[in-house]
Amino acid sequence: VADSEFDTDTAVSRLAEGSYTTTITPRWNIGAAPNGGYLLAILLRALGDALPHPDVLTVTAHYVRPPAPGRAAVEVERIHSGRSLSSASARLLQGAPGSDLEGGECLRALATFTDLDREADGRPSYVDGGPPGLPPPDECLRGDGRMPGGGSAAIGERFDLRLHPGTVGWARGGPTGRPEVGGWIRLADGREPDLPLMAVVVDALPPTVFDLGVAGWVPTIELTLHLRARPAPGWLRCWIRSRFLTGGYVEEDAEVWDADGRLVAMSRQLARVPRMRSERRREWR
Amino acid sequence: VADSEFDTDTAVSRLAEGSYTTTITPRWNIGAAPNGGYLLAILLRALGDALPHPDVLTVTAHYVRPPAPGRAAVEVERIHSGRSLSSASARLLQGAPGSDLEGGECLRALATFTDLDREADGRPSYVDGGPPGLPPPDECLRGDGRMPGGGSAAIGERFDLRLHPGTVGWARGGPTGRPEVGGWIRLADGREPDLPLMAVVVDALPPTVFDLGVAGWVPTIELTLHLRARPAPGWLRCWIRSRFLTGGYVEEDAEVWDADGRLVAMSRQLARVPRMRSERRREWR
Repeated sequence: VADSEFDTDTAVSRLAEGSYTTTITPRWNIGAAPNGGYLLAILLRALGDALPHPDVLTVTAHYVRPPAPGRAAVEVERIHSGRSLSSASARLLQGAPGSDLEGGECLRALATFTDLDREADGRPSYVDGGPPGLPPPDECLRGDGRMPGGGSAAIGERFDLRLHPGTVGWARGGPTGRPEVGGWIRLADGREPDLPLMAVVVDALPPTVFDLGVAGWVPTIELTLHLRARPAPGWLRCWIRSRFLTGGYVEEDAEVWDADGRLVAMSRQLARVPRMRSERRREWR
Repeated sequence: VADSEFDTDTAVSRLAEGSYTTTITPRWNIGAAPNGGYLLAILLRALGDALPHPDVLTVTAHYVRPPAPGRAAVEVERIHSGRSLSSASARLLQGAPGSDLEGGECLRALATFTDLDREADGRPSYVDGGPPGLPPPDECLRGDGRMPGGGSAAIGERFDLRLHPGTVGWARGGPTGRPEVGGWIRLADGREPDLPLMAVVVDALPPTVFDLGVAGWVPTIELTLHLRARPAPGWLRCWIRSRFLTGGYVEEDAEVWDADGRLVAMSRQLARVPRMRSERRREWR
C-alpha cells in the first residue's frame, strides 16, 4: 500500500546518530490523547534504524505524559550490540517551540532486537493452545471507536476491527462481567501487518475493564511486548484478558496470532483504573 | 533479621545524585552467573533511594552480560516525578579497575514507583482465581539448587524453597511435559519479604522448560515485574507457567501471593532456550 497511514504516521527522520524527528498526528487518538501503542511504534521505527538487527524481540515503554499533535523529537541510546541480540533505549520528547525539551519527555522505551528468522534452528518448541476461537469476521461486531462515556476514538478509523460478540457487552446491553475482549483486526487501508504494528494492535481494542462496568480513561502506565514471529499477510486475531484489578491497577495480557495460525506477539500492560464515577482526564498521571 | 543476607548483598552506597556503588556477591549465583532477579533488586534499592515514592509499581530489566563478583557501579537517571507516580532508568556497570566503564553495562532497567497504600480508594477490584493450590510445605520437595546437568545454584542456599511435588519431574523420574513450577518460598535467614525481594522470588525457581526436557542455561533476556501490594510476613506462594516455546524463546509468567492470600506480584520474563544438546554457557548473549 503506497502512502499507508501507518507508515506515514510513524515515520522518523534521522538528524544525527541517535537523533530523529517525527510528527505526531491525532489520527491514532483515543479521546484527546494519542494511543500508547502508536507512540511506541514511532520509537520502534527509530530503534530499527539505530540497531543492527532487523526485528524487535522485546520492548517495554513507560508512559509519562501524552504529546500534542505536531513535531516531536526521538532520541535513541544504544546499550549493547552483540552477535544475535542488540539493545537500546529510546524516548519521545516534546516541548514548546524553541525550548530545549527539558522536562518534555512523553515516554521512554527499552528494547532488544534480534533476527527472528535465524534463532530457531535446533531448538525445541511447545505451544499450549492456539489462536482464539472467533466467529467469522462477518459475524462479529464492527469496532467503531465509540467509548462508554459517549466519546470516540479516531484510532477506530485506522483499523478494520471485528469484535467477538461474546465480548464488549458494555457497548450493547451491559457489561459481561468478564474482563476480556477479542477480535479480528487489520489496517483499514489494506497495509499488511509487520512487527512495529503489533505495538498498536495490542493496545487498539477497548479496555477489558469496560466489561466490569468501569467507564472512562484507562491510561497505560507500562506496556511490554514480546515478538515471536514476523506476521503473515491478512487478518490478525487478538485476544486480551485481565485477571487482577487491584489497588487501582489492572494488567491486560494480549496475544496476537496471524493468518497462518502462528503466535506473533504477546503483550502485558499495566493500566490505571479510574474511580467508579465516570471521569475523563487528559493527563496520563 | 539483623545483617540479613538480602539486605547486605543488595546494599548500594550513594556517591552523588544518581550515582551509587555496590558489591556483587556470588551467593545468589546460578552456575557461574548472578541470578537476574538479584541484580534487579540491587537496581531497585538505588531506584528507591533516588525516587520520591516508596514502592516499585512496575520495573523492566534487559540483561546484557553477567557481572563478576566484586564492585560495580549503579547509575540512576530520573525521568519524571509526579503526584502519584515517578519514574527513572537505572543501569549496572562493571569494568576493569580504573576503566571508565565504557562498554561495561550489565543490565538496564526502567521503573515506575508509587505509593501502593494510597491508590486504591474508590476504585473497583476484581480477582480471577486465588493463590496456587499447594500441599503444605512439609509435603513439598526441598529445592536445593541442583540443576539438570549436575551443576548447582548458590541461590538455592539463600531461600527455603518447597516445590510442588507435581512439578520438577526433571529432578526425579523425568520431565512432566508441563512447563510449570510452583512452591512455597521464603528467605532462609528469616528476613521477611518486601517489594525488592519479589524481583528475586520470581526468578528463583527452576526454569519451567526443564520439565519439557530442556537442560542447560536458560538466560533471561528481559524481565518485567508488576507489584500490587506490599507482602505480609511469612511464606510466599509462587507459581510460574510457560505457554509458548517458539523460535528459541520462552515466556515465564509468575504470580506471587503472600501469607494473607493477597496477590503481591506478577512477572513475565523472556528467556532464551538452549539447543537440545545440553550446553552451559557463561555468557548471556
